[in-house]
Amino acid sequence: MIAQKMIKYVEGSSVTRAMFEEGKKMAAQYGAENVYDFSLGNPSVEPPAAVKNAICEILEQESPCYVHGYMNNSGYETVREAIASSLNKRFGTSFGEKNILMTVGAAGGLNVVLKTLLDPEDEVVAFAPYFGEYNNYVANFDGKMVVVAPNPPEFQPNVAEFETKITPKTKAVIINNPNNPTGVVYSEETIRALAAVMEKKQKEYGTAIYLIADEPYRELAYDGVEVPYLTKYYDNTIVGYSYSKSLSLPGERIGYLVIPDEVDDFENVICAANVANRILGFVNAPSLMQLAVAKCLDEQTDVAAYDRNRKMLLNALTQYGYEVVKPEGAFYLWVKTLEEDDSAFVARAKEYNLLVVPGSSFMCPGYIRIAYCVDPEMIKRSLPAFEKLAKSYENE
Amino acid sequence: MIAQKMIKYVEGSSVTRAMFEEGKKMAAQYGAENVYDFSLGNPSVEPPAAVKNAICEILEQESPCYVHGYMNNSGYETVREAIASSLNKRFGTSFGEKNILMTVGAAGGLNVVLKTLLDPEDEVVAFAPYFGEYNNYVANFDGKMVVVAPNPPEFQPNVAEFETKITPKTKAVIINNPNNPTGVVYSEETIRALAAVMEKKQKEYGTAIYLIADEPYRELAYDGVEVPYLTKYYDNTIVGYSYSKSLSLPGERIGYLVIPDEVDDFENVICAANVANRILGFVNAPSLMQLAVAKCLDEQTDVAAYDRNRKMLLNALTQYGYEVVKPEGAFYLWVKTLEEDDSAFVARAKEYNLLVVPGSSFMCPGYIRIAYCVDPEMIKRSLPAFEKLAKSYENE
Repeated sequence: MIAQKMIKYVEGSSVTRAMFEEGKKMAAQYGAENVYDFSLGNPSVEPPAAVKNAICEILEQESPCYVHGYMNNSGYETVREAIASSLNKRFGTSFGEKNILMTVGAAGGLNVVLKTLLDPEDEVVAFAPYFGEYNNYVANFDGKMVVVAPNPPEFQPNVAEFETKITPKTKAVIINNPNNPTGVVYSEETIRALAAVMEKKQKEYGTAIYLIADEPYRELAYDGVEVPYLTKYYDNTIVGYSYSKSLSLPGERIGYLVIPDEVDDFENVICAANVANRILGFVNAPSLMQLAVAKCLDEQTDVAAYDRNRKMLLNALTQYGYEVVKPEGAFYLWVKTLEEDDSAFVARAKEYNLLVVPGSSFMCPGYIRIAYCVDPEMIKRSLPAFEKLAKSYENE
Repeated sequence: MIAQKMIKYVEGSSVTRAMFEEGKKMAAQYGAENVYDFSLGNPSVEPPAAVKNAICEILEQESPCYVHGYMNNSGYETVREAIASSLNKRFGTSFGEKNILMTVGAAGGLNVVLKTLLDPEDEVVAFAPYFGEYNNYVANFDGKMVVVAPNPPEFQPNVAEFETKITPKTKAVIINNPNNPTGVVYSEETIRALAAVMEKKQKEYGTAIYLIADEPYRELAYDGVEVPYLTKYYDNTIVGYSYSKSLSLPGERIGYLVIPDEVDDFENVICAANVANRILGFVNAPSLMQLAVAKCLDEQTDVAAYDRNRKMLLNALTQYGYEVVKPEGAFYLWVKTLEEDDSAFVARAKEYNLLVVPGSSFMCPGYIRIAYCVDPEMIKRSLPAFEKLAKSYENE
């Protein structure tokens, strides 16, 4: 008999599995090339060649017991130092090795932060639409999710509503920028406004409100848009980063937390996070990959490839009459559904062999997420289906 | 301000850090070669060359998006199939791909199992002495640790006491075989007796009691001793395995769970474990390492090297008058302290530049753990210190 808390997950999981099975059935029925799967955030661009070279070099040059052995639970000091220096160079910050904690991806990092900070019933604020796993991560530590409603059509956070949602129990606020699922980049203006609200509320309640910046999509920004580095706008900021998208290494589970000196209760936070990384069972971020990413800090994924996909889909969908939110980052398009019920719309899309994710999965019904981290040829083949789907609503 | 639950960990952590700092100070003062650090379970034997070859081969032959990409949260199907086949060949079991869940080491695996099974206040039984992290893993899910007292001088579990410790709230029993910290291998006779008790209690209470077999040391057994494969003795067994010791890859965090068809509520357990792996933030076991270990299933570490260390220390310590528990597995010696207070004994050992771990850390005062996964030259250099330490008690 499984834990009570897990029962709803098992039920939810069987829905996902059913969808997945249906996708496989469709591929068998229509041919894989005629099914257009836009549902997964799995990078389609290969990792830079430098990653392979780095791994081979490390295996050739370093002692195997060093490469594959235990190190400090926070990661290799040299790796953390290299990452701190790289951040300082890029963002004018002044982090040191002690501010960096290597994690099992951003998902691992977020769980470490939440374990470090949350007492039961503590509140964590997030801005809809947001990555649904936040709900589960917060529930892992018996925290309470507080949702700021979606703010169409721009989907910048609603600052006024945010202010009303902060209470003396607010322990953390999660910002995901560039945003999954909308592809929106929160502007510097937005960030300043959010920071001002948090500063004010911290004073008002005499509490510390930690801003958790979840930044796996940081490097994926288009049209020259700047993604603000949040530690520069608000002292109580902890950054979670991942190389899943920036180096196309999602399976490797490698990322880091930045915990600046300026955060409230710094010494305890940094120490508790180190312990949390250990006792949650991560122990440390995978060792070879730590060493490998440290050699690839100036590398980046082929953003131009995603940009071409973005433009192709954006232009076509707009032309077909879809309302698409201006996508400046990540690899997602956020599209208004052509009927109110997004689940019904997703089901109709499936009739045209289009697999997309309903906005409800991101706490924002009435929209769908299209992940364009896919083969551009698939996008080309899919366009007539998107057009027919739109037409099917015109004729109603 | 950190979470209330984390405060005690931070305090404990500063003690560990103080010890570590003292070790560094000693190394600076006396020279690193004159400090004998037997405190860490970090494999001293290099990984087999096959690991490096496997990694290079994979990087040469496979598509990078496959090697470093997302897969099913339970791991690559091919890897799980290969592991199942390997286990079936070795142990006469009949596992399939669906019974294997790749994990971020055994620590990750244990957390996944406990998340899957434990409701708050559920009880988990363990046999002292045991790995202290079990306490933290169980606390992660608000479970309650129930300890069966140490059973010297053999340190086989006390079956009679075990029976009295099982209640209707007992959800799981953890067995670590070969054992950290004692180096004892639980015999087939012990396992049969424990299984019989659990069968009886399951019937008596109408509950399911899961046996969690924590087996990172499985391959490290000496003198031809057999380590029973627990799924063959008790249906409700879940095995946690790690390649940390068997392939000397502790930093890589790669292991797996075996969840046999026979376990109670199998379909839900397997599904919940898959979800738990995801929502705890592991997402999946590191991808390249999954593929690498699948190519090294017939490899093993140089057990003979550990065996030489074991014999050298065992012979010397016995000769100096120490009472050493018969070590048949893992890479630890479990030694009775020469005064009642093991912390005082550890402090005295430090005066002779010997760093060892007090039994209290394993819920068993009056003993120390000596980790002999070290350079044999260090053992040789350390022997006079062990002798002097023993003599210092004779003269009292």
